[in-house]
Amino acid sequence: MKSVGVIIGSIRDNRVGDKVAHWFFEKSGVKKNLNAEILDLKKFNLPFFNEDVAPMALKGNYSTEEGRHWYNTVKKFDSFVFVTPEYNAGMPASLKNAIDYVYPDWNSKPAVIVSYGFHGGVNSALSLERIITDKSPIKMNLTNTKPKLFLSKDILNEKGQFKNIDQDFEKYTDEIKKSIEELEELLNTATANK
Amino acid sequence: MKSVGVIIGSIRDNRVGDKVAHWFFEKSGVKKNLNAEILDLKKFNLPFFNEDVAPMALKGNYSTEEGRHWYNTVKKFDSFVFVTPEYNAGMPASLKNAIDYVYPDWNSKPAVIVSYGFHGGVNSALSLERIITDKSPIKMNLTNTKPKLFLSKDILNEKGQFKNIDQDFEKYTDEIKKSIEELEELLNTATANK
Repeated sequence: MKSVGVIIGSIRDNRVGDKVAHWFFEKSGVKKNLNAEILDLKKFNLPFFNEDVAPMALKGNYSTEEGRHWYNTVKKFDSFVFVTPEYNAGMPASLKNAIDYVYPDWNSKPAVIVSYGFHGGVNSALSLERIITDKSPIKMNLTNTKPKLFLSKDILNEKGQFKNIDQDFEKYTDEIKKSIEELEELLNTATANK
Repeated sequence: MKSVGVIIGSIRDNRVGDKVAHWFFEKSGVKKNLNAEILDLKKFNLPFFNEDVAPMALKGNYSTEEGRHWYNTVKKFDSFVFVTPEYNAGMPASLKNAIDYVYPDWNSKPAVIVSYGFHGGVNSALSLERIITDKSPIKMNLTNTKPKLFLSKDILNEKGQFKNIDQDFEKYTDEIKKSIEELEELLNTATANK
């Protein structure tokens, strides 16, 4: 059975990203045919990338335990779901940093981009797509369906947290299921080509 | 006299960004008509942004000393030069993080984007432009001239450092001077409109 890591891109204490990722994990069908796991960047606690050479040349020889742990995690998964908020029309630094830690072990792997924000995180999704698409150096294999989840004041409480994510995000159920079906197709195609 | 902060976007120990920024500082004429200062993100040592609310709502009430120091620094400068490397077709996490710490005190301020890399950092410059252009939420006032400095194996030694930056980057002198002239024009126009 192929595996997929659902990456929580935000690491703020007061984030909603963990709730979005867990909601996706439960409702998208990601666990049905895949070994699925949530990868919380907050728990990986990566420092800003500070190795002498680029990840391509490092070949896993990271100077920090956190770096090695993240590298070994990315290495073992067959595919990924990136769950990203939008900060100033781009992805958060925490996610860019985590991506920049690894190079060959992202290459060719299938991925879904799930963005959220008051405008559906559309520009964050684009900023992420530009660095991981098959036209980028990292060359991942992206699904066509990239769910964009709209936040609004109505669905958040005074602390900026969801009142009832299951109810308010129910309308996205078909789309998130479709994204996972496409991910599975990409994984099957990759296997068939080997 | 108006002020300009020349921001070193990379924070790696083995970076070349500090040399690029110091070279720009000496050769671009930035000190001639402006109070110019180098702002080294490595020294600011910002943690990943982790406040309960967005910078717009924080109004300077950061929970960390590093956050307050960076906010107060951005606040006091009239304009900026962003010196950025390219990691995977985008800007480094360190620079995105530093930008995301502040909001109103970037708005409307003039800025130059200087990128460097084996392809001139062209995609990093674009990724930065998209989040700080006047069409973005941050709405800075960018110069037309955005110097792109090409690295190559020929001009770097075996440790990835410049052999002779003054000589090898001499060809960019006119362009970097032009970028600062445009910055000064934007600063003058901004004053005239007040």
